[in-house]
Amino acid sequence: MLCLLNNTRPEWVDIAAADIDTLLIDHAHCEKKAAYNALTMIQNYPEHEDIVREMIIILKEEWDHFERVYERIRNKDLKLVKDSGNEYAKQLSKHIRKHEPEKMLDLLLIDGLIEARSCERFSLLAKSESISQDLRDFYQELFASEAGHYRTFTDLARKYFPTETVKQRMHELAMIEAKIMDTLGHQPTMHG
Amino acid sequence: MLCLLNNTRPEWVDIAAADIDTLLIDHAHCEKKAAYNALTMIQNYPEHEDIVREMIIILKEEWDHFERVYERIRNKDLKLVKDSGNEYAKQLSKHIRKHEPEKMLDLLLIDGLIEARSCERFSLLAKSESISQDLRDFYQELFASEAGHYRTFTDLARKYFPTETVKQRMHELAMIEAKIMDTLGHQPTMHG
Repeated sequence: MLCLLNNTRPEWVDIAAADIDTLLIDHAHCEKKAAYNALTMIQNYPEHEDIVREMIIILKEEWDHFERVYERIRNKDLKLVKDSGNEYAKQLSKHIRKHEPEKMLDLLLIDGLIEARSCERFSLLAKSESISQDLRDFYQELFASEAGHYRTFTDLARKYFPTETVKQRMHELAMIEAKIMDTLGHQPTMHG
Repeated sequence: MLCLLNNTRPEWVDIAAADIDTLLIDHAHCEKKAAYNALTMIQNYPEHEDIVREMIIILKEEWDHFERVYERIRNKDLKLVKDSGNEYAKQLSKHIRKHEPEKMLDLLLIDGLIEARSCERFSLLAKSESISQDLRDFYQELFASEAGHYRTFTDLARKYFPTETVKQRMHELAMIEAKIMDTLGHQPTMHG
């Protein structure tokens, strides 16, 4: 699956399917964070036209996803509760280097990795027979969209940095991501 | 003009019209901040369905504005430069009380006041003969949209708080806003 170096623990999809309410609420918060993230890329790199243009598109798509997940939450008479944070993203972000231009490369690649992992998990959800067909179709659609975002982030990295630098750093970060993922897969959350 | 207790200094519109490039760049950053702000309201108050639903709409509209302002910036071969911060919004936000539910009321009313002031200024720009007709039409459209946002924020305040409480706190904050505004009106920026 894309740049990922390991698979999600096989039990995860059943854990998630068994508590779809919790998954939906966590998913809404993930889409909100993705929107925050697109804004922050523009805030950090306003002078990079390619970044601004792509983030304009990504934010629109993530916001459409947020709206649709929230609609599902409301249709189930659930409430969006406080965001309990995303340990996976927090752990990954510790590896963002402090100085430019390394910081920009790390932000783009870590965003790419998060999109790739979301992709892998949407694909697992889309195939689960414990989930309603309607929701599986939704996850299938999100899978395609997040795959596009993964490509956007990695294409941007290659636009601003030499191919070899991108490849090497992506491998380092993918190893870190896989190590974090090895400890996860026990929670009914998008990256838990 | 809506809840505002004073008018923008009359010279401001000429100062802004004389440096439309700076105004456009600052305006893009204002739209970005409005989008951040909508996300933050959802982050703070996820359990309040009316807030979440309205912020979904507001974010979409602010993002459409950001995209259109950014298109104008690119069409003029300008670059979006680093956000130099918004002193007006910073000064206003010092008056947000720290505890709930007062904090929520203050956030809603200060957001409403910022929208109202943006409204007043878009209306001045829309009437300025020193600005191209095309841009004046754009500002006229934004004037209507921001007036709608002003109403959304104040309607939300009235939904969650007693009318008299809202009225009294709005008057206090509008006095603070007018005092801040008295010191401004010298810069070619949306709230400068």
